[in-house]
Amino acid sequence: MDTTKVAIIGLGTVGSGVAHLLLDHGDRTARHAGRTLWLEKAVVQDLSKQRGCDLPEGVLTDRIEDVIEDSQITVVAQLIGGLEPARTIMLQLLENGKDVVTANKALLAEHGPELFDRARELGRSIAFEASVAGGIPIIANIGQCLSANQIESIDGILNGTSNFILSKMYQEGVAYADAVAEAQQLGYAEADPTMDVDGTDTAQKLAILAHLGFGARVHWQDIPCVGIDTLDSTDVRYAQEMGYQIKLLAVARLAGDGLDLYVSPTLVQSGRPLAEVGGAYNAIRVVGEAFGNLFFYGQGAGQMPTASAVVADMIDTAVGRTALTFRTLELWSGRKARVSSNDFAQAQGRFYLRTEVEDHPGALAQITHILGENKISIASILQHEPPDQYSPGDLPRTVPLVIMTHLTSEGATKTACERIDKLDCTCGPAVRMWVRD
Amino acid sequence: MDTTKVAIIGLGTVGSGVAHLLLDHGDRTARHAGRTLWLEKAVVQDLSKQRGCDLPEGVLTDRIEDVIEDSQITVVAQLIGGLEPARTIMLQLLENGKDVVTANKALLAEHGPELFDRARELGRSIAFEASVAGGIPIIANIGQCLSANQIESIDGILNGTSNFILSKMYQEGVAYADAVAEAQQLGYAEADPTMDVDGTDTAQKLAILAHLGFGARVHWQDIPCVGIDTLDSTDVRYAQEMGYQIKLLAVARLAGDGLDLYVSPTLVQSGRPLAEVGGAYNAIRVVGEAFGNLFFYGQGAGQMPTASAVVADMIDTAVGRTALTFRTLELWSGRKARVSSNDFAQAQGRFYLRTEVEDHPGALAQITHILGENKISIASILQHEPPDQYSPGDLPRTVPLVIMTHLTSEGATKTACERIDKLDCTCGPAVRMWVRD
Repeated sequence: MDTTKVAIIGLGTVGSGVAHLLLDHGDRTARHAGRTLWLEKAVVQDLSKQRGCDLPEGVLTDRIEDVIEDSQITVVAQLIGGLEPARTIMLQLLENGKDVVTANKALLAEHGPELFDRARELGRSIAFEASVAGGIPIIANIGQCLSANQIESIDGILNGTSNFILSKMYQEGVAYADAVAEAQQLGYAEADPTMDVDGTDTAQKLAILAHLGFGARVHWQDIPCVGIDTLDSTDVRYAQEMGYQIKLLAVARLAGDGLDLYVSPTLVQSGRPLAEVGGAYNAIRVVGEAFGNLFFYGQGAGQMPTASAVVADMIDTAVGRTALTFRTLELWSGRKARVSSNDFAQAQGRFYLRTEVEDHPGALAQITHILGENKISIASILQHEPPDQYSPGDLPRTVPLVIMTHLTSEGATKTACERIDKLDCTCGPAVRMWVRD
Repeated sequence: MDTTKVAIIGLGTVGSGVAHLLLDHGDRTARHAGRTLWLEKAVVQDLSKQRGCDLPEGVLTDRIEDVIEDSQITVVAQLIGGLEPARTIMLQLLENGKDVVTANKALLAEHGPELFDRARELGRSIAFEASVAGGIPIIANIGQCLSANQIESIDGILNGTSNFILSKMYQEGVAYADAVAEAQQLGYAEADPTMDVDGTDTAQKLAILAHLGFGARVHWQDIPCVGIDTLDSTDVRYAQEMGYQIKLLAVARLAGDGLDLYVSPTLVQSGRPLAEVGGAYNAIRVVGEAFGNLFFYGQGAGQMPTASAVVADMIDTAVGRTALTFRTLELWSGRKARVSSNDFAQAQGRFYLRTEVEDHPGALAQITHILGENKISIASILQHEPPDQYSPGDLPRTVPLVIMTHLTSEGATKTACERIDKLDCTCGPAVRMWVRD
């Protein structure tokens, strides 16, 4: 049986998982690849650090040159996080004739065009299944299995940490800060979970999917993005009462000649597959012209699901499939964009609006007047009776007024909310979220 | 841009869909394949028949030789149903240097070993994504994307017709025969839906998945198989009352050193993804050692979802990916079986049992005694009060007694039910179904 010599750069959580699959299940990998994947080197910064895996004598090294200068190593899993030195190392690997497998979505989202161009110039490939949705093979499905289609939309829950926090808030009614604390305690959230909860991580993944599925050429920072870090449990409760759950959705959807793209907390009707995705899971709904609806649900992160995606990529690369796919991928391909992003203000949808209103006559009339002027029609409205302890001598106090709109535009609801916020009878900025049917 | 000349044999529903994708979206296919897929010939039996698609001059022919003898045609979608002449034509295509794409699961389930052996001997490939679960790319996912894993179980709803009928019975409480009639009226069920409702179609698909995912060597006729054609709406109602839905599941699950394999109506807890699959949809849950749980949901049949899978296979074949995958597939590979089927009687699970019991003292004691002797422990029991119109002078009449067991074996429940059926206090054979948590 033929042998392909492979290496791992970085033996963190994912790297250790990859080493485990290659070393402890080498026979299985060989059977599926038709060749042995031989782990020749694993490069780490600090040789003395305790590792989660036992490596054979001579595999562990702190010299990147041991990989770069070994021409027999042809496939390298580059598993260092962050932008540098990850970028420089990836370029070095490509220059030295290695095909590269990576899980680093931030690196691709930031330096994808440079890295992909260089790989193509050098006749090398970059595989990146693990960069989006961990254990769900969404890259292969969109890039290969669904290639007979025009993809029409991709909606995804792409950040497990945010979804865990939202599930906690929904199921147990806990406040955002408490849910974050529990996610950290359980190891779902980093010590600094900013990139997860502010939507950055989701926007970076969405940028990759938009390039791949639609031939878009958008930078992740240009995607309108709202995270869950400002979410109020009041809205979780109201959504629930109206039969919805709030999910942090990444949306890419063809509309007219362009692409609607955004990341936002979104109300999804309970019972719909995306609404029922709980805990740290990921899910993606893809709609295509020919195949119709397709829904994927699985573990979006974690050591072994991510390692599974990395090793599948290493097998594909060793076998030669990646090279065949890589040259036709519409991802940082140097080709002209096939679709551009629509003006976000024009994006159509239904919206959830909540504003705090002073509990006196005329307030509702003023608000509905503003909505009417912006051509926003109301699907349903919800205002509960104020609690009992109200006494007439108190200061004017507010009650939440919740409005679900019919189809309207992002821009119209934004303008309307800005005007509503300026009314004397309202207090604090209105909350505004997408509703996905 | 390079061109690959392709042909279609059979212009039925799926064939017309494939022609539509190739002819009307040739630019898209070319972009995704990196080469043009040129439809050179479409072979039909009857040239005068009205078709659902317009073909360019010279493409339509009733001579199979126009494909076989044209050495420039290298990829052929063979879309004739049934066993013959489909088998003979496929062998002819392989002998004449064509790579073949097919949607014919019955042909593969019956003649897979012969066809795959011949293809391998000749250095050709057979692609068959469309043969299982239409629009869900489950073959590529199991055969390629999840190849770093030991698959631990595959549970699937693989027959859309049966699922449509079950959904109708569940949602509207209609009887089996009425649900079948509606499925026929809407075009979901064939004039003769026997193969769908008796589980044959599902067992054939399960055989393919068991070969592919586990390296099993089982013939579909050796898979224990019960369809939905004997299902009573009484059981649908009781299942519903206890928080379950009945689904026709195909199950392949590693247990000990072997594989539990069966097709059976199965109670699935409401709210679980598989339970919520409605209408003519298909869904598959795959559990793997590394990636964990993965759930796929999509259109399992229909013209365009199936055509989408066929054209994706044609692209993969033209690009060269299929050839690389085909030689490592564990499907009729000539390799020794890696796993054999377990003795079905030993298969562990929870069960739903219903028997009609005469409404008099001692009946329950007799039944629970038999269960106890077979080491079956009862999780819950349900017997409603008899309806009011009962009058003491009537003949002894029966009431349904429903028992949900704890974990036990198929064999134990079978033996117990046979003994229960022989009791004087019961009437008619007991109903017995798997419960999947």
